[in-house]
Amino acid sequence: MNLLLLEDADFVADDRAVLRGRRLRHLHEVHQAESGDSLRVGRLGGLMGSGTLLRLEADEAELRVRLDTPPPAKLPLTLLLALPRPKMLKRVLQTVAAMGVPRLILLNSYRVEKSFWQTPFLTPEAIREQLVLGLEQARDTVLPEVSIEKRFKPFVEDRLPAVAEDTLGLVGHPGNHPPCPRAVERPVTLAIGPEGGWIPYEVDKLREAGLQPVQLGERILRVETAVPALLARLF
Amino acid sequence: MNLLLLEDADFVADDRAVLRGRRLRHLHEVHQAESGDSLRVGRLGGLMGSGTLLRLEADEAELRVRLDTPPPAKLPLTLLLALPRPKMLKRVLQTVAAMGVPRLILLNSYRVEKSFWQTPFLTPEAIREQLVLGLEQARDTVLPEVSIEKRFKPFVEDRLPAVAEDTLGLVGHPGNHPPCPRAVERPVTLAIGPEGGWIPYEVDKLREAGLQPVQLGERILRVETAVPALLARLF
Repeated sequence: MNLLLLEDADFVADDRAVLRGRRLRHLHEVHQAESGDSLRVGRLGGLMGSGTLLRLEADEAELRVRLDTPPPAKLPLTLLLALPRPKMLKRVLQTVAAMGVPRLILLNSYRVEKSFWQTPFLTPEAIREQLVLGLEQARDTVLPEVSIEKRFKPFVEDRLPAVAEDTLGLVGHPGNHPPCPRAVERPVTLAIGPEGGWIPYEVDKLREAGLQPVQLGERILRVETAVPALLARLF
Repeated sequence: MNLLLLEDADFVADDRAVLRGRRLRHLHEVHQAESGDSLRVGRLGGLMGSGTLLRLEADEAELRVRLDTPPPAKLPLTLLLALPRPKMLKRVLQTVAAMGVPRLILLNSYRVEKSFWQTPFLTPEAIREQLVLGLEQARDTVLPEVSIEKRFKPFVEDRLPAVAEDTLGLVGHPGNHPPCPRAVERPVTLAIGPEGGWIPYEVDKLREAGLQPVQLGERILRVETAVPALLARLF
């Protein structure tokens, strides 16, 4: 937790917040904070700055905060991700939030196991929890928008062309394709496949929607490795 | 497991191997393989190719293999990593092997918790197990060399200058430094710090050994995210 992220409900006055629960435990156990300490804080969806611990008790802490710094810029990116297995989903959500992806679309694909759609980690509360961890890690305050598309074909045929319009549309896909471009200067729509990759039909459909296949070399990377690798290369 | 990695002890003849244990279970449970199936195989430290399942039983499988393809090239890189916490160490070892890092040095740092050095995941067998998972993921056969340096100062003062000689020496470190270079065409020595970062004394010592600080933007990334991000940007 490199940033203590405060929510609207934590504020008891414009410059005062009261903490309980996970973040309070973290202050006690990991930061070993003491009354009077100064911490980096941010307000969810708002500014960042510093907070002074006015009191720190076992079950409650009170902070005086001064928020004056905007959060870091997001990447000009819409990321489409074939739904990863639940354990990986949690980490990927953190990574997506930490790296500054503003829009994530979790998409079905032929090689996504049906059981993955049943995971409790797909509830809005569970998704938000992982995103908040990513924001706290990277020092950002703005939650990415996450949407869920359980039907590949209608989404890719009917709505993806509008999402990809006026962007550089890319599909990360191993094979004999051009290498993923570097340091692009324009908005990107990037689709990353499931374990085992997109099937050819899906690559064709994504291409029709305006996304061209690109590769990162002959090594097959896990989704949680491919996401930071592709983003660091693109931006 | 995108590559079935065979070890010398699995071979019963030049072109025959017998499998048991984890990899056999994986063939049964994940691949749902059947007798006659063809699989991608590689020999640890050697060539890659294909294998045909001659028989597949509950406790044993026999393959006829044909190995004719060299493994993918490694990156021209020596990676120094402040020892991560045990859970992250496992994943980082997989990532390092998957991305083609040939040499990894796990190093102490002021912000590495002493308890991390006690983990059973640092035994040679445990390290090898994670590296093999990374090779199987990425389709490579050559284990990275991993060495462990529990004393920062003597290593950085006495041995790092020779490691870094004739390479581009870099320290990943947040702050007001030049951005990490892209697409470099020469060997690199890259040091990545612990959670919380290197302390200034350590950055100075690394600099004296020939490594210059570079940054990846204002977002603080977890080590498991920073490693693929830095490597994808550098190479």
